[in-house]
Amino acid sequence: MTDSGLPPLSVAGRIDSLMDLLGSAGCDSLIVTDRSNIRWCTGFTGSTGVLIITPAGSTLITDSRYQSQAPLQLSESECGSGVEISPSPFGVGAERLRDSAQVGLEASSITWSAQRAWVDAIDGEVVATDALVLELRSVKTSAELARIEAAASIVDEALAEAVELIKRGTSELDLAAAIDAGMRRRGSAGPSFDTIVATGPNSALPHATPGDRTMQDGDLLVVDCGAVVDGYRSDMTRTFVVGDGPATDEISTLLEVVAEAQHAGVESLAAGVEAGTVDSACRGVIDAAGYGDHFGHGTGHGVGLDIHELPAVRKGNTGILQPGHVLTVEPGIYVAELGGVRIEDTVVVTPDGSRVLTRFPKNPLV
Amino acid sequence: MTDSGLPPLSVAGRIDSLMDLLGSAGCDSLIVTDRSNIRWCTGFTGSTGVLIITPAGSTLITDSRYQSQAPLQLSESECGSGVEISPSPFGVGAERLRDSAQVGLEASSITWSAQRAWVDAIDGEVVATDALVLELRSVKTSAELARIEAAASIVDEALAEAVELIKRGTSELDLAAAIDAGMRRRGSAGPSFDTIVATGPNSALPHATPGDRTMQDGDLLVVDCGAVVDGYRSDMTRTFVVGDGPATDEISTLLEVVAEAQHAGVESLAAGVEAGTVDSACRGVIDAAGYGDHFGHGTGHGVGLDIHELPAVRKGNTGILQPGHVLTVEPGIYVAELGGVRIEDTVVVTPDGSRVLTRFPKNPLV
Repeated sequence: MTDSGLPPLSVAGRIDSLMDLLGSAGCDSLIVTDRSNIRWCTGFTGSTGVLIITPAGSTLITDSRYQSQAPLQLSESECGSGVEISPSPFGVGAERLRDSAQVGLEASSITWSAQRAWVDAIDGEVVATDALVLELRSVKTSAELARIEAAASIVDEALAEAVELIKRGTSELDLAAAIDAGMRRRGSAGPSFDTIVATGPNSALPHATPGDRTMQDGDLLVVDCGAVVDGYRSDMTRTFVVGDGPATDEISTLLEVVAEAQHAGVESLAAGVEAGTVDSACRGVIDAAGYGDHFGHGTGHGVGLDIHELPAVRKGNTGILQPGHVLTVEPGIYVAELGGVRIEDTVVVTPDGSRVLTRFPKNPLV
Repeated sequence: MTDSGLPPLSVAGRIDSLMDLLGSAGCDSLIVTDRSNIRWCTGFTGSTGVLIITPAGSTLITDSRYQSQAPLQLSESECGSGVEISPSPFGVGAERLRDSAQVGLEASSITWSAQRAWVDAIDGEVVATDALVLELRSVKTSAELARIEAAASIVDEALAEAVELIKRGTSELDLAAAIDAGMRRRGSAGPSFDTIVATGPNSALPHATPGDRTMQDGDLLVVDCGAVVDGYRSDMTRTFVVGDGPATDEISTLLEVVAEAQHAGVESLAAGVEAGTVDSACRGVIDAAGYGDHFGHGTGHGVGLDIHELPAVRKGNTGILQPGHVLTVEPGIYVAELGGVRIEDTVVVTPDGSRVLTRFPKNPLV
């Protein structure tokens, strides 16, 4: 397994922790439909499933494709939930929920049509819940941290190996392919999102798709990629200059300002700090350099079973950072036609600061 | 670009076709939130966006990360929609929808919380719509077919190249990595879903995740993978026997029955046929062989911008197949502990039958 040498991923007790939150969320039972939330609660990795949590016990309902896999995974994870195989969750679910008066649904992930179907299927009142599991998930256990750190190391190594391709004539697609293959060979289950390799003017698009544009000397080159270990993801971005270094003073300035902003963001991190403070720390440096209008996205996001999860690192977010929160710090400056610069680390919050999980050198000039 | 040599992907006229359907769906305007539906309507490939379609015109609302990319893609696609950049779609959307009395929402993809936010934001009545864009998307243009066919060829070639790794001692992860890298090198934007490589008893799990189990002589080996060209996906499965051929009569039987069932399914395909007929054709062969209880999933699904789209090929589906529908035919038999066999092609429906886009040989014994 990819988890060789990693501590076991137990989920024991998680459903109980969730049950403890239901009262304050206005419900006595919960229907968990988000795939990553189901995985976090039960260890089940299938693509289809609904987890019914009631005071009398919990049941994962999935279809016959998973009739071998689901009982096996739920037994190994020690989640305490049973399994029912059914082509549709509504009949079994209604049966399990027949004594429930207020049933929570995960409003931010369940579709409107599924919500309507549950309203029709059950007698109890349906209640919108917000981020119950996501809040619990945001604080990582040491076993989870070990996996995110392993995923971060895989990216460090895969990018270090691929750096020799950063030269005139290499296409964006070729570099992306080399990074993806390098991550796979090191045990990543796949890229944690579609790898971004953007050269020259394409780098001004924060979410560019790699194409067959080839690198030219003096190009800015943004690489944004991550790996996956046992479902846990990492995320990093580095910006390179192709060839003999920055072709213009403006490019040098962009690289310096973003590096300084990213450093300020990481330095501002600690348990007890508001998430918005980290955004302000980065934004302050970029604003002061006169590029405030060219930093159009948030500073970062939580990372775990999903590539974007809690906490959000955005302007005005007053949520308090806690030890075990894992998040990205990724300021950027984008100048149309010239290109963009973004630098991103995956970082874990500690009681008195933070620990940067991404170790690849900053701001390398190739 | 990966589309070298492929006909241009115009989306001109698609929003008008959609407008023509709104009256019969009980609405005068539509809020499109599904990402692939937005891409199909406008050519926009970003991760965040909402498309507002009204009789007075259409507007894509997306955030500042896409302020360069969105106008460029919408202009190139000739979709006829404008762009507004806003951190939230509700304000701009409410403005565009102020003359709309009935506003359709895509109930199968919009979240319950987004539906609630639209109810709060707009004056008109919110109406649940079902599969309006999905039905239109299910019939592919020749330019779309060319991309799906290109994606199918990429998988054929990548798997042919990786076959030499199918031997005792290779791990599931190593074979998956080789296939993914081979697809990337041939221009795939990534795997069209997480590549499945399942050996021995793992192959009894239809959706197994590759791990570090190494191949043993006599193992059944299921490989299920696909490529992506300009967003369009392919999907194929082949089952191999590791080493010198089937170790037991039962394995030989499984391979023969599934091959016969898959052939019967493809033969049953033609425009005017009910989708459920294709399922029955496969299921009849497997039932007759006594393995009906071991074929627990549907026979297939449509493929396009999403890996699972319309039409569904399931028991009792009375939807009529049309020329240009692209779907998979993928019966399987799964025997706990022994293993599983599945064979899958991506196929396009033609007026008088079908054309199989997957060309990799069937039932190879390595």
